[in-house]
Amino acid sequence: MTAHGKSTALPTTVTTGPIPGSDKIYVPPPGRPDLAVPFREVLLDPASGEAAFRLYDTSGPYSDPATAIDLALGLSPVRAGWIARRHPAPLTPRPVQPADNGNVAAEHLLSPCPAPLAVQAAPAGQPITQLELARLGIITEEMIYVAHRENLGRAALAGDAEARRADGEDFGADIPPFITPEFVRSEVARGRAIIPANINHPELEPTIIGRNFLVKVNANIGNSAVTSGAAEEVEKLVWAIRWGADTVMDLSTGRNIHNIRGWILRNSPVPIGTVPIYQALEKVDGKPEQLSWEVFRDTLIEQAEQGVDYFTIHAGVRLAHVPLTARRVTGIVSRGGSIMARWCLAHHRESFLYEHFADICDIMRAYDVSFSLGDGLRPGSIADANDAAQFAELDTLGELTGIAWDKGCQVMIEGPGHIPMHKIKVNVEKQLAVCGEAPFYTLGPLVTDIAPGHDHITSAIGAAMIGWFGTAMLCYVTPKEHLGLPDRDDVKAGVIAYRIAAHAADLAKGHPAAKLRDDALSRARFDFRWEDQFNLGLDPETARTYHDETLPKEAHKLAHFCSMCGPQFCSMKITQDLRAEAGRLAGLEAKSEEFRARGGALYVAQPTAAD
Amino acid sequence: MTAHGKSTALPTTVTTGPIPGSDKIYVPPPGRPDLAVPFREVLLDPASGEAAFRLYDTSGPYSDPATAIDLALGLSPVRAGWIARRHPAPLTPRPVQPADNGNVAAEHLLSPCPAPLAVQAAPAGQPITQLELARLGIITEEMIYVAHRENLGRAALAGDAEARRADGEDFGADIPPFITPEFVRSEVARGRAIIPANINHPELEPTIIGRNFLVKVNANIGNSAVTSGAAEEVEKLVWAIRWGADTVMDLSTGRNIHNIRGWILRNSPVPIGTVPIYQALEKVDGKPEQLSWEVFRDTLIEQAEQGVDYFTIHAGVRLAHVPLTARRVTGIVSRGGSIMARWCLAHHRESFLYEHFADICDIMRAYDVSFSLGDGLRPGSIADANDAAQFAELDTLGELTGIAWDKGCQVMIEGPGHIPMHKIKVNVEKQLAVCGEAPFYTLGPLVTDIAPGHDHITSAIGAAMIGWFGTAMLCYVTPKEHLGLPDRDDVKAGVIAYRIAAHAADLAKGHPAAKLRDDALSRARFDFRWEDQFNLGLDPETARTYHDETLPKEAHKLAHFCSMCGPQFCSMKITQDLRAEAGRLAGLEAKSEEFRARGGALYVAQPTAAD
Repeated sequence: MTAHGKSTALPTTVTTGPIPGSDKIYVPPPGRPDLAVPFREVLLDPASGEAAFRLYDTSGPYSDPATAIDLALGLSPVRAGWIARRHPAPLTPRPVQPADNGNVAAEHLLSPCPAPLAVQAAPAGQPITQLELARLGIITEEMIYVAHRENLGRAALAGDAEARRADGEDFGADIPPFITPEFVRSEVARGRAIIPANINHPELEPTIIGRNFLVKVNANIGNSAVTSGAAEEVEKLVWAIRWGADTVMDLSTGRNIHNIRGWILRNSPVPIGTVPIYQALEKVDGKPEQLSWEVFRDTLIEQAEQGVDYFTIHAGVRLAHVPLTARRVTGIVSRGGSIMARWCLAHHRESFLYEHFADICDIMRAYDVSFSLGDGLRPGSIADANDAAQFAELDTLGELTGIAWDKGCQVMIEGPGHIPMHKIKVNVEKQLAVCGEAPFYTLGPLVTDIAPGHDHITSAIGAAMIGWFGTAMLCYVTPKEHLGLPDRDDVKAGVIAYRIAAHAADLAKGHPAAKLRDDALSRARFDFRWEDQFNLGLDPETARTYHDETLPKEAHKLAHFCSMCGPQFCSMKITQDLRAEAGRLAGLEAKSEEFRARGGALYVAQPTAAD
Repeated sequence: MTAHGKSTALPTTVTTGPIPGSDKIYVPPPGRPDLAVPFREVLLDPASGEAAFRLYDTSGPYSDPATAIDLALGLSPVRAGWIARRHPAPLTPRPVQPADNGNVAAEHLLSPCPAPLAVQAAPAGQPITQLELARLGIITEEMIYVAHRENLGRAALAGDAEARRADGEDFGADIPPFITPEFVRSEVARGRAIIPANINHPELEPTIIGRNFLVKVNANIGNSAVTSGAAEEVEKLVWAIRWGADTVMDLSTGRNIHNIRGWILRNSPVPIGTVPIYQALEKVDGKPEQLSWEVFRDTLIEQAEQGVDYFTIHAGVRLAHVPLTARRVTGIVSRGGSIMARWCLAHHRESFLYEHFADICDIMRAYDVSFSLGDGLRPGSIADANDAAQFAELDTLGELTGIAWDKGCQVMIEGPGHIPMHKIKVNVEKQLAVCGEAPFYTLGPLVTDIAPGHDHITSAIGAAMIGWFGTAMLCYVTPKEHLGLPDRDDVKAGVIAYRIAAHAADLAKGHPAAKLRDDALSRARFDFRWEDQFNLGLDPETARTYHDETLPKEAHKLAHFCSMCGPQFCSMKITQDLRAEAGRLAGLEAKSEEFRARGGALYVAQPTAAD
């Protein structure tokens, strides 16, 4: 990346190859040999006697050594046949205009991605969205695919699933022991889950976002006017999904954004989200007051035809809400929110997004672009958390959810932001109540403002908690938040922190098979299977590097200690030695029972205050 | 640090100098001009009109450019006069024996720290511990000192303190708006807080650990037999407190540990904790079964005379508990716990720590060494969380707390470990009930096992939550946990993650002045006072570095944008512009009220499920 400049270099290479210690596999759902659902399998030390451990895999074909990657050709359109059977109408794409790429001079224009795309849309009245199809009782391929993907590990639990499920607190969610395609359909039909899947994004490997499914993670990428170009952004996409991002938002705002987006979409196996108002603003030279419904509408169509899977729409920022932010410590911190607030005040008019919301729905429905109703008034500091502006907007988002559902559109709801721990839970409760249980999608929240440079951590704390309480997808925050545009290292740090938060939430909610991975890794740890411990973790490369800093030799991968404690002080080794005295232990176990039964000195009265 | 070797180089230099953007100051408590309580003040941009912002400061004289540091002389014994007035008896120190340093050959022996120390102890019957003095109604200098330290910011709140306090959920804690020395005394007297302060550690700047005070952070340092030496460990101490560690545990286990400990203690302004069983084990050639009360007793005296402020004592690992761990996934993961379990089984006898607990109390009381009752059976994996072994030990710790209190000893209780989020709260509830509200001191907990290499994050999530629920001190976990001995970078990463967790907990508990720092930083952020934002944060260096990666010029420190969004898309800038239209906004505010009063379309019925 060149500081203070933007590259028009074409994306040519990205990170490919297996993730260390794992094989890419594809497994068809029962009865559907034509669907190839990707997983990774970690091959464990044969001496362990354990089978390969299967993992959810977001990394796409990039981690499959058997797939040739050519960014100019794009990924294989795995959904093309599924979509074709729903008979959308082909259409002549809206011609690309110079303004779409920021009117850059020829020598600065990034060439478009040459991968072919037959653009299509559903005529009015023809059901096409996953929501419309679900309501008609149709189980789509996307639904079968995500059911199989989510069931990871659950089949193996067999009759034990209910028992595992009991070990969690899900705050009123409705997580079944086993996910059937019909369950997916019913959750989509009632608006409690979405499958973001634009019919113009046939390269997509579908994923589902909802409270009764595994918690998902979104990574933001995108250049700014100050730095980065296309090659960097495509690599950030591939890098983010390699470490576990379930969806990626392209927040680009500089020049060439139409063409950068094309490169990203044709090469993305995960849903891509955007904030169309950013590009609309570019088209009016960055002057919010010059925005209009016409420019915005044109941008929606442009991006929907390219295949964007979900749009953040800040239609909840109404004219009357803006003054509620006047006494805030940090005002309006959403870019989209501040743009719309400025427009409303400049014209002293109600937001055109709010007034044209039904029109927006009609456009998005035709391509099955999902709504991500933006929280333009989210708090940007602890001081502003849960204030009147935030909740006034949330009420409007509830109103808009109803309209979008009536129009057949899939909807999720964006949430904050910066919230101290004791104020997090009420956010989920209000959102579920006001928005009819539409999936919640929150940014963090950051539980304190005092750690710039470490906000992946401040926000992972809030993200784990809000995920546990019921948030369906967590938008990552990188260490660069508030300070600069994240680079590749920051993207990885953010994704890993959020995979931790999402998995911690799944565990606490009692997702039936979530704990299997913790248990497999802990067994490897206890058995000193170092390679297995590394490979079962979220980040095998870092774990191995850290271990090898002090004990680099291959022989140390078999050692019954590490440099933290050294050989004499390894508690796990001592416990293992101890267990070797198995017979003795068995006898002791009986003695221990006896001891407990006696109610001996072990259980004494609570000590009293010594004052 | 040299891999695979240990250095006997003398500690000569450590990191000194001001923490960026702040001045070290000393402020006496009211009426006690002889006590100099350290703080740091961040000098803010004069244009902000804000006064310098005062911070709690753990960094000791190292961050004070006016203090000359000479590690061989040690720090100034600020407590010497306070202690002398309590008339402990001077004593002839126990002679250092070759075994104390692991019987190293002369050429490998680290020279002892030459800083002088007049060793003393209180004869039986003479009150000396903070607990004994508190019960007698005596307010010690340590109590006055910590009260003033804790009151940071509260005076400025004046009558507003109650209002602030209401904005939190403290789960039954009893946090006063203002901390008086008498409140400190009463909390110490009833065992609800401790001030770890060995009378042989006169260099100490006292701190208080208890549920009604600010949440504290401990950092572990110490070499292992595999790597690191004295110079590295003293630097790790200074480095850990520079970033905010309130106490430091020296977990050294290799050779030269007596002399390493001496260098650490004479140069530590924070309480130092140790696990004496580690050194005792070294004295019996690493063979747990050869441990005896006599060796352990000798080690306690050796370390108490050096000035260690608190000892982890694993007296809760009883013979009958060991079999309860037999079916665990990760057995016993505490080093001390596994050593004692091994001893109990090898001799088929009750633990000598348990049997000699009253003797241990008598020794520790004489120097005012505080107990940190070790959780030798803490869970080492999600699978083992909250199991019978863990809670059986906790019950024993409750019993031992009562004994120690009767003996006049200060006590805190160690806690786990690895716990999924939904099982954290009950740990605090049980501990408070069983141990009579003695301060809880937990390691993390890690909320998942699947992220080796990132366990500062998995554990900061659990630490923030358990701190909120009532834990008084959080023991950090570094990124190297489970993989190797942390180096200087890991120490910083761990301390910062835990300062985040501790502050998030303080905020959520409603500590009266905690939010002031968030607000000051957020105001700086909103005003584009970049330098102020960096300097008010936990890690000014990293924040500045990240910002400057893309916008390095000094002029950019005044820019109303950063590279994340660029100049046109900065929401804060747009909001600021918007506020400039102040008159218009005022009118709108009235309109907005009108709109809300009407109960217009803003508040609509909740959308119904669309199935």
